[in-house]
Amino acid sequence: MKTPPKERIILGIDPGTTITGYGVVKAVANTPQLVAIGVIDLSKFGDHYIKLKHIYERVTGIIEEYHPDELAIESPFYGKNVQSMLKLGRAQGAAIAAALSRSMPIFEYAPRKIKMSITGMGAASKEQVAAMLMNILKFKITSAKLDATDGLAVALCHFYQTSAAVKGKGSGTWKDFIDKNPARVKKKL
Amino acid sequence: MKTPPKERIILGIDPGTTITGYGVVKAVANTPQLVAIGVIDLSKFGDHYIKLKHIYERVTGIIEEYHPDELAIESPFYGKNVQSMLKLGRAQGAAIAAALSRSMPIFEYAPRKIKMSITGMGAASKEQVAAMLMNILKFKITSAKLDATDGLAVALCHFYQTSAAVKGKGSGTWKDFIDKNPARVKKKL
Repeated sequence: MKTPPKERIILGIDPGTTITGYGVVKAVANTPQLVAIGVIDLSKFGDHYIKLKHIYERVTGIIEEYHPDELAIESPFYGKNVQSMLKLGRAQGAAIAAALSRSMPIFEYAPRKIKMSITGMGAASKEQVAAMLMNILKFKITSAKLDATDGLAVALCHFYQTSAAVKGKGSGTWKDFIDKNPARVKKKL
Repeated sequence: MKTPPKERIILGIDPGTTITGYGVVKAVANTPQLVAIGVIDLSKFGDHYIKLKHIYERVTGIIEEYHPDELAIESPFYGKNVQSMLKLGRAQGAAIAAALSRSMPIFEYAPRKIKMSITGMGAASKEQVAAMLMNILKFKITSAKLDATDGLAVALCHFYQTSAAVKGKGSGTWKDFIDKNPARVKKKL
């Protein structure tokens, strides 16, 4: 009898009070697969509490739909001012509470760590991170929906940080990606 | 037929990552009555997520026990640094999520507003607020348990801000309290 490949499902969330991005990655035998990617659009709600309620309810719904084993969230460790950090903290708290009420373990990563993990460059642009995600997880997304990739990025970062996979095997860094996809590079004129 | 006195139950919470104080006040015919007062002691938990989980679960438990109609929380609008505000925001977010998942309306008050509402002085000390609370709501608490009064204070503040009661009728300000309780005033030597 062979042991079935160990599966685990990672939910990644980038909490924000305007847009909260999320992504779900399934890891099968140390290979990441895309399960879901999307955004929770909060810009239409004026009231701060309705935004928090929406984050809590949508994250609860995503957990009930995909049954993730772990939550990874993007968390900056500094911010513009204390007021914006308090609001961000509340958004994080609402998302985290939804996961904690299902006893999910939680992991957090700073933006720079996520970019480094996905592209090999801590200062990568959102477009560069998105290009790597599409390359690794084999999907396409229009540039208008780039916000949706932030949640997916932290999910994949967590996968890399906690799996025994040899990252990328030659396709795991931005440099390798450029080498293999020269047509994707915008030339400076 | 007489209309029965309108009753409403207010849960007050002062979220913190070391101690979260809570108080429950029942308003019967514009008179506030003490229902419960206590603290959620988080100092024994080292892990930040376990603290958040504990806040979420205890607040959920308090809501299920007392069925409050409204949540009032103490919320400072500035803080020492962005890191402490992010942590405070998460603690608030976990408590707020518990209330929002029961569709409770939420109201927040700055510390100064709460002190002003209870004692008539925005710069009142914790001991002065506690003395007024004990006087108004007819209970006693030892000075070792003063932290428990912070949640009760915001609940009573919300009651005063939203009820038609003529506050105190001569016992509602710190000055009146001093006038009536001269023995409680520590003399400066």
